[in-house]
Amino acid sequence: MQIEIAQPLDMHLHLRDGDMCRLVASLSAADFSGAVVMPNLVPPVVSVAEMEAYRSRILAAAGVGADVFTPLMTLFFKNQTAAELEAARANPNFFALKLYPAGATTNSDGGVVDFKSAEKTFRAMEELGIPLLVHGETHGFVMDRESEFLATYRRLATMFPRLKICMEHITTAAALALLGEFENLFATVTLHHLLITLDDVAGGMLRPHLFCKPIAKRPEDRDALAAAALAGNPKLMFGSDSAPHPLDKKECCGCAAGVFTAPLALPALAEFFAKNDALENLQNFVGGNARRIYGIKSAKKSVILEDVTSAVPEFYAGFGQRVVPMFAGEKISWRVRERVCA
Amino acid sequence: MQIEIAQPLDMHLHLRDGDMCRLVASLSAADFSGAVVMPNLVPPVVSVAEMEAYRSRILAAAGVGADVFTPLMTLFFKNQTAAELEAARANPNFFALKLYPAGATTNSDGGVVDFKSAEKTFRAMEELGIPLLVHGETHGFVMDRESEFLATYRRLATMFPRLKICMEHITTAAALALLGEFENLFATVTLHHLLITLDDVAGGMLRPHLFCKPIAKRPEDRDALAAAALAGNPKLMFGSDSAPHPLDKKECCGCAAGVFTAPLALPALAEFFAKNDALENLQNFVGGNARRIYGIKSAKKSVILEDVTSAVPEFYAGFGQRVVPMFAGEKISWRVRERVCA
Repeated sequence: MQIEIAQPLDMHLHLRDGDMCRLVASLSAADFSGAVVMPNLVPPVVSVAEMEAYRSRILAAAGVGADVFTPLMTLFFKNQTAAELEAARANPNFFALKLYPAGATTNSDGGVVDFKSAEKTFRAMEELGIPLLVHGETHGFVMDRESEFLATYRRLATMFPRLKICMEHITTAAALALLGEFENLFATVTLHHLLITLDDVAGGMLRPHLFCKPIAKRPEDRDALAAAALAGNPKLMFGSDSAPHPLDKKECCGCAAGVFTAPLALPALAEFFAKNDALENLQNFVGGNARRIYGIKSAKKSVILEDVTSAVPEFYAGFGQRVVPMFAGEKISWRVRERVCA
Repeated sequence: MQIEIAQPLDMHLHLRDGDMCRLVASLSAADFSGAVVMPNLVPPVVSVAEMEAYRSRILAAAGVGADVFTPLMTLFFKNQTAAELEAARANPNFFALKLYPAGATTNSDGGVVDFKSAEKTFRAMEELGIPLLVHGETHGFVMDRESEFLATYRRLATMFPRLKICMEHITTAAALALLGEFENLFATVTLHHLLITLDDVAGGMLRPHLFCKPIAKRPEDRDALAAAALAGNPKLMFGSDSAPHPLDKKECCGCAAGVFTAPLALPALAEFFAKNDALENLQNFVGGNARRIYGIKSAKKSVILEDVTSAVPEFYAGFGQRVVPMFAGEKISWRVRERVCA
């Protein structure tokens, strides 16, 4: 069996910087026509000039042009002024602002503390048609952080009805239910949150390579997300949240949060959708919905997947970096057969 | 400030075997007058002869006699016959049977699959006055395993009203509530479950040295357990569940479950009880309740604790082993001042 995916998009990706970027950028660039690149570097990407420079480093690291892989660049939300937002919007490589509550995840210390003070920026974004991508977690108990944040989504969606708000990497049935309530709410979901629960992280041995933020939740949450993705929910977009960390930051006494999935995401998604007789909905999940929602233009690339088994490496290494992917050393029953650039 | 604890007992302890036992046995033997030793070696301790041999290895490893540290030996629950139980009870070093549902935790593969088939053994234990210690978890979702098992405790407590059943290492408010419902139900609780929640394990960085089974639960669970211990609940006993694993089994891609607390348990408990103005209840929690409930005889040792800061080592090493304790590299505001053997 084969399936052709036109212009696959990863709507939530961490490419890091320096040698790690050199290792991982080409892996995403191979399979995807574009990706929304997260700005949580150290320091975060806040100005258009920094964003442009980061985009150049990404393309150099990937070794391709934007006609092969289109980085959809984001800026770190910092209560930007209307003038700053207008300048960003004038740049064709700018896609959206990414909001982190301060301290919610990796490199988010400079994030938002007080949502009230951010309202002017939200209003200006609404006027300018700039999407707001949100890491929606409170600082509460780890299993409750996303559901506790839903009230904030609800308030924002109500106050700014024309602002496109994307609940990034949702993990709960409750977030999915909220998605249906507001026209201006959208969501991304990762590969791993479609497949795993807290049981996979901590139910048997503790598996640091499956530890991520938001943490994997309950079986009923995972099942609700999977059902929505497989059913072709038009507001749900694939965003891998692929987040490489060096091996010594994962297998240690205080391990960093993030699952590295970018290089195997398309085959694993094809396997998952095929197994559930939902292959016809894969195209919209990995690109179609995002293009319709945001009007995204990305590289004219098609990827042909086939149901031939492929092996996932134990790790990806290079440039002095070593990263362990999800399914390390395991097999996936699909693979990428061909990548065609127009 | 000082407090003297007469005959402190650790009612749930893993001493392992071989070199690991050589490293850790003396640490428990220093501070405690006795400890209930878990039988989940590989293979598990099932016969009285194996139990006696294991006890000798423990005392040799600790380098003391039973008049200084009394190992309260357990056998692995295996549907023992009445004759086997009588033989065990005739041995003065035998204390109880420890029941593991098959596969519930470290080295428990040979545990109970079918509780119905175990009823004859329960009945004989009830007749003979042998306590039943239970690892009470189902194979369900990791956060629900203990609460799902409570129905089994309820059934056993009802069917065998004279059988002393100890819910080992309870972690939930629900288990605590059940404790109050049945006269023949008792419980141990660990140091770490009085102090931590899943947030400490996976809410920030992932901390494998705080990963244990049963997994740490929600704040309201931890708070309920702490309140009961501090208030002097007469059916609640300290059992450290101190479970040393070699460093390379904790900081790796699939880390083993267990927190190593034995050498710092008494100072940490004193700190915790002192901070909560409950020092007067510490004696019963770390020995008094267990002696009253089971009629335990242990070494005539007193430990004097004082509110002087002590440092917890980064690790304990020796005999080719290296184990990281809870609070590694941190400070505890109490310490053991003196150990007095009568």
